[in-house]
Amino acid sequence: MSETELGESTPPVEARRAFRQGATRPTCGISKGFAQANMISLPEEYAYDFLLFAQRNPRPCPILDVLDAGSPVPSIARDADVRTDIGRYRVWENGELTDTVDDITSVWASHGDLVTFLIGCSFTFEFPLMDAGIPVRHILAGRNVPMYDTSIPCVSAGRFSSTMVVSMRGIQPDRVSDAVRISARYPSVHGAPVHVGSPARIGIADIGRPDYGDPPILEDGDIPVFWACGVTPQAAVMASKPSFAITHAPGYMFVTDVPDRCYMV
Amino acid sequence: MSETELGESTPPVEARRAFRQGATRPTCGISKGFAQANMISLPEEYAYDFLLFAQRNPRPCPILDVLDAGSPVPSIARDADVRTDIGRYRVWENGELTDTVDDITSVWASHGDLVTFLIGCSFTFEFPLMDAGIPVRHILAGRNVPMYDTSIPCVSAGRFSSTMVVSMRGIQPDRVSDAVRISARYPSVHGAPVHVGSPARIGIADIGRPDYGDPPILEDGDIPVFWACGVTPQAAVMASKPSFAITHAPGYMFVTDVPDRCYMV
Repeated sequence: MSETELGESTPPVEARRAFRQGATRPTCGISKGFAQANMISLPEEYAYDFLLFAQRNPRPCPILDVLDAGSPVPSIARDADVRTDIGRYRVWENGELTDTVDDITSVWASHGDLVTFLIGCSFTFEFPLMDAGIPVRHILAGRNVPMYDTSIPCVSAGRFSSTMVVSMRGIQPDRVSDAVRISARYPSVHGAPVHVGSPARIGIADIGRPDYGDPPILEDGDIPVFWACGVTPQAAVMASKPSFAITHAPGYMFVTDVPDRCYMV
Repeated sequence: MSETELGESTPPVEARRAFRQGATRPTCGISKGFAQANMISLPEEYAYDFLLFAQRNPRPCPILDVLDAGSPVPSIARDADVRTDIGRYRVWENGELTDTVDDITSVWASHGDLVTFLIGCSFTFEFPLMDAGIPVRHILAGRNVPMYDTSIPCVSAGRFSSTMVVSMRGIQPDRVSDAVRISARYPSVHGAPVHVGSPARIGIADIGRPDYGDPPILEDGDIPVFWACGVTPQAAVMASKPSFAITHAPGYMFVTDVPDRCYMV
């Protein structure tokens, strides 16, 4: 399956195969009905501190799967390998982004004890929003979701501290309540928004210039609605400078086999 | 405040003070509107494996708070000390229950690196059930909740493995759906039931003889409804035999300052 053929009807196993074979594109709008996940791999010596950071910050870091040290095999997708099945990865050393690649097999081999965390992603509830008649503008436009660094503090844990990263969707005033209500039922994939309106109040100076992803599409009267984002661990990597880390690239998620309804409360 | 004065109108801080001063009774029906928590303290070398066990088994082990190694001070209750503020504790060595005490200050002092986990408790949603007109029979009778070992496997993590412990409430057939619906909104305190009816199917031979707590009260036509229980870590201690552990005694919970509505989805 070619990159351009990937879409909402693509089964997760085929989406993962396409990324394994070289496809590179954001995964919003792909494999309708199945949860997607953020990824971070860290040396084993950081695993407890990071798991505790995630536990203390469940809105941005809801853990879906923790792989055993050194293992690239997740439990939430069959025949999957986190070293190859994501479209784009980022490699970090001492908090600095040192490389962007589409396969981490070789870099993984030189770090034998990596512990990989898969973290819920708000893409999971975008289809339920659209099914309820709430347009998700970046999907309709074929863009990546806009994401922003904020001034919202996370709770520190061991060597990890950070501010929160959020994703933003513009929503008409008469549907904001529905968007809150629907996404709240998916607490494992970020749940309800953390902030509605007033980007300046969370340290976002210019809504038109996101820190990650593509510029937003805001239609007349749209209220900017902000959800906690699984890119927060990358902000934690930048702030806390672990010796080594691999993450997905923002918007280039791991597609799981878990139906999104399994994460619905 | 004496033990017999403890009740649903007791503020959490006063309940903790009463337990600190020697009160010893189960906490079901105490401090209406505030979340209660299970406790387990383990040597730091077991902390990652246990946190991973909890992450992989969020129904029985929803983590509310993880204290720093050696610290008895939780973040979810002010002026609190987990060494004194629970009515009854159990001390474990190599998976064997070696003591039952009402204060762990001295035993704590000889294990300087203990990491304490506070885990959600189904007592938190019992008041919402009663507010909806669903009688919680053990509270009305002034008894501890009945709890059972089951054959339901937990997902193993490192050195920890276990079967699940469940609590049981007898509910009339026309209210089972409401009990599911209401408790489901509290996933941080066990959430929806894991099993409805048919105790034999989860390895419970005699519903009249619980493994923990008091015998159940089942009225005519009651359906036994089972929720994942925070005593599961104690079953994991028995099965996995860490060198040392301290837990609360089943039903003798830590009363937090967090309004139960904060945990509602």
